Amino acid sequence: MTTRETIQDGIAQPPAGTKGAGTLAFDIAEYDARVRKTKEAMQTRGIDVLLCVNPSNMCYLSGYDSWSFYVHQAVVVALEERHPIWIGRGMDAVGAKVTTYLDDRNILPYPDDYVQSTVKHPMDFVADFLKTKGWDRGSLGVEMDAYYFTAAAYETLKSRLPNATFKDGHGLVNWIRVIKSAREIEYMTQAARIVENAIAAAVDAIHPGNRQCDAAAAIYRAQISGTPEFGGEYTAIVPMLPTGSGTATPHLTWNDSRFVLGEATILELAGCRRRYHCPQARTVHIGKPPQRLVDTAEIVVEGLNAALDAAKPGATCEQVEAAWSRSIRRHGLEKESRIGYSTGLSYPPDWGEHTLSLRPGDKTELRPGMTIHMIPGIWMDDWGIEISECFRVTETGAEPFCTNPRRLFIKD
Amino acid sequence: MTTRETIQDGIAQPPAGTKGAGTLAFDIAEYDARVRKTKEAMQTRGIDVLLCVNPSNMCYLSGYDSWSFYVHQAVVVALEERHPIWIGRGMDAVGAKVTTYLDDRNILPYPDDYVQSTVKHPMDFVADFLKTKGWDRGSLGVEMDAYYFTAAAYETLKSRLPNATFKDGHGLVNWIRVIKSAREIEYMTQAARIVENAIAAAVDAIHPGNRQCDAAAAIYRAQISGTPEFGGEYTAIVPMLPTGSGTATPHLTWNDSRFVLGEATILELAGCRRRYHCPQARTVHIGKPPQRLVDTAEIVVEGLNAALDAAKPGATCEQVEAAWSRSIRRHGLEKESRIGYSTGLSYPPDWGEHTLSLRPGDKTELRPGMTIHMIPGIWMDDWGIEISECFRVTETGAEPFCTNPRRLFIKD
Repeated sequence: MTTRETIQDGIAQPPAGTKGAGTLAFDIAEYDARVRKTKEAMQTRGIDVLLCVNPSNMCYLSGYDSWSFYVHQAVVVALEERHPIWIGRGMDAVGAKVTTYLDDRNILPYPDDYVQSTVKHPMDFVADFLKTKGWDRGSLGVEMDAYYFTAAAYETLKSRLPNATFKDGHGLVNWIRVIKSAREIEYMTQAARIVENAIAAAVDAIHPGNRQCDAAAAIYRAQISGTPEFGGEYTAIVPMLPTGSGTATPHLTWNDSRFVLGEATILELAGCRRRYHCPQARTVHIGKPPQRLVDTAEIVVEGLNAALDAAKPGATCEQVEAAWSRSIRRHGLEKESRIGYSTGLSYPPDWGEHTLSLRPGDKTELRPGMTIHMIPGIWMDDWGIEISECFRVTETGAEPFCTNPRRLFIKD
Repeated sequence: MTTRETIQDGIAQPPAGTKGAGTLAFDIAEYDARVRKTKEAMQTRGIDVLLCVNPSNMCYLSGYDSWSFYVHQAVVVALEERHPIWIGRGMDAVGAKVTTYLDDRNILPYPDDYVQSTVKHPMDFVADFLKTKGWDRGSLGVEMDAYYFTAAAYETLKSRLPNATFKDGHGLVNWIRVIKSAREIEYMTQAARIVENAIAAAVDAIHPGNRQCDAAAAIYRAQISGTPEFGGEYTAIVPMLPTGSGTATPHLTWNDSRFVLGEATILELAGCRRRYHCPQARTVHIGKPPQRLVDTAEIVVEGLNAALDAAKPGATCEQVEAAWSRSIRRHGLEKESRIGYSTGLSYPPDWGEHTLSLRPGDKTELRPGMTIHMIPGIWMDDWGIEISECFRVTETGAEPFCTNPRRLFIKD
C-alpha cells in the first residue's frame, strides 16, 4: 500500500471518482470567457505567460477553491495554451481535480520537500516547468503586489529564469473581475441575504452582560449556516466588532469582555457564497446614544445617499466621492480616507479587489456590472461610526444588495 | 468637527482614553525579552535594522493585534532604538495604541492615499522614515518569504534606499518564537480546551442529512464562544472538513451538501486564545467503516504514538519522523510529506511557524518549550485519514495538549 502522494512523472495520478466531486460555480463557457479576456489583456501589455498567485485570480480562472494559499502555488495562463495550468503542492492536486474544470494534465503538483524549506523554493519548481515549456524566453507577467507573491518568490524566479523578461501583471485579472456577470451578481445577491441575517444576529446578540465572543459566535453561525436554501462560506475578513473606545479604529476584532450599557459597537461583516462577498457595516449603540452619535449617523446616511445617487454609468469614482464630501462638508465634517472599493470574489485577507477606489484622483468610470462596497467610516478621537452599502452599478444607477435599514441601531 | 484621520506631523494624535483599552497578553518584561533576543539574533546576522511584516512577528514584538495585514505595515526593530516602531495605515494607528505597549511616538501612521494606489506604495513611506532616522546606510533585514512582504514591497524599498545593504531576515523572529514561555504554554493549554470542544461539536454535528455548512457553523460556535472562563478567537486557518472522496486531499473546506451514510469526514480544526493555537485533526466515519479505514487508523495511531515517544529534548526532527516511518513501514505504508511543524502564535493564512518540520533532513534538535503539531495525514487515491496531536516538548519528553481519544470516530 502506497499513499497517493508518490508522484509519478511529476503528474499526480487522477484519483478515481473525484473528478467533478465539487460542483463548478460557473459554466465552462464563463471560465473560457475569463481566460480569453485575460489573454487579450496580456497581449495588450505584451505578456506571453502570466503567473497568477492571487488566490482570487486563481479561482476566477480555474475554479480552484481550497485553503492552500499558505504554500506557494500558481495558475499559469499562456497565450499558446488553451487552458490554464495549476501548479501547487502535491497533497493539494486532488483539491485541484475536485474543484477545477482543468484536465488532469493541466494539474502539476510539486513534491512536499519544497514546502517551507531552507534549501529550495517552490518557485524553483515553477521555473523549471516554465523552462520545459520554453516559456522562459518570452515575457513573463507576475503579480508584483499580490499578497502571496513574496520577494523570495520573485527573486527565485529571476535567478532561475535569466532569459525571461519580467513584466508586472499585478491587477491584470483583478480589472477583468471588476465587471460581474449575471451569475456572479446572483451569488452576491445570495451573499446579501446571508449578511442581512448576520447583521440581525449581531444586533440581537449585542446587549449588556453578553460577551463579545458570544456575539461573534452568533455572527459566525448566521454567516456559515446561511439560509435554508444555500449555505454560507468563510469570509475573506473575519467579523469586525470594535466596541467602546475601540470604535475609533476599524480593524479590531473581539475579545471575551462584556458589552456595556452606554457604549457603541461597529459591525463590519459580510456574507459569502461561492467565494462571492456582500459586505455591510452598521453601528449599534446600547442605551440612549450621545447626541454626537445620533447627529453623525444622520450626516453619514445623508452623505451615503448622496453618493449612491451619484453612482451611475459614466460617473467617475472621484465624482461619487465628491458627492459624499460635499454632503458632509455642509455639516462641518471631513474625511481623508477612501469611501469605497470594488468587491466580489475573494480569499483572505481582504474582500476588496484592489482596483477602483472611491476617492479623489480615481478617474475610473463606473460601468454596469461593477459591484462596490461604499463604506464611509468616520473615526474620531475615541469613537466612530460606520454605515455602509454594497451596491451594483445598473444600466441607470446604483442598486444596493441589502435591504436592512440604513441607520444607527439602538438597543434598549 | 474634523475626523481624527487628519494626521499632524505624520504622527497620529493620541486618542483620549484608548491607551490600554486592550489588555496586553504578556507582561512588558516578556516583550522586552523578545526584543532583546531579536536584537541578539540581528547582531549575529549583521543586521542593524529589521523590518518585520509577518503579522505574527509584529504581534510577538509589539502586541499589535488587528486585522489590518491586508494593507502594508511593519514593526521595525533597530539596534539603536530601545523599543520597536509600528508603521501602518492611518486608520489603524489607534488600533496600535489600543493593543500594543508602545509609546505613541513609536506609532507611525501613513496617509490613506498610499493604500492600494497605482502611483505610490506604502513602502515609499517606510523608506522615507528609515532615511529620516539615518537607517538607510546600514544593513536592513527584510523577511524575504513572509506572506505579506510582496515583490513590489521589496522592489520599492530597494529603489528608494540605494545605500542600504539588504539582508534576508526571514525566519529570524520565527526561530525565537519556537521556544514558548510559561504564559504562552498557558494560552495554548486554553486553546486546547477550545479545540476539544470544537472537535466534540463537529462529531456531534456530522450525521446523515445534516448540511456540511451547519456542521461548520457548530464548529465555529465552539471555537469562538470558547469556554465560560475564556473566549475563543478566529483561527489562522478556517475549519477544514473534506468529506467523502474529498478526504483524499486535506485543504477543502465545506459546502452546503449533506453528509452521507458510509462516508468519512476529516476534521482539521484549532482553538485559538490570544492568537495562540492548538490544532487537532480527527476523522469521523458515518456508519460501519470500511476495513481499510479501520486498519489505517490503527496504523496511524501506532505510528503517531511511536513518534510521540521519540519526541524529547535532544532528539532531532528527522529522528522523530523516522520513528513514525519505521512504524508504518512495518504495515506496508509510506508517506512522502512531512508529519509536523512548529505552531503557536499566528495569523491567517497559516498556524505553522515556518521553522522546524518533522521530516527527513531536518536536524533541528527538540528543546523544552517547543510546541509542535504532529499531523501525519494519509491521503490515498480517493480517501484519506488524519489523526493528529499538538504537543509541547517537556524536560523529559512530549506532552500532548489535548486529551480526547486518539482514534477513528464512528457515528451510527
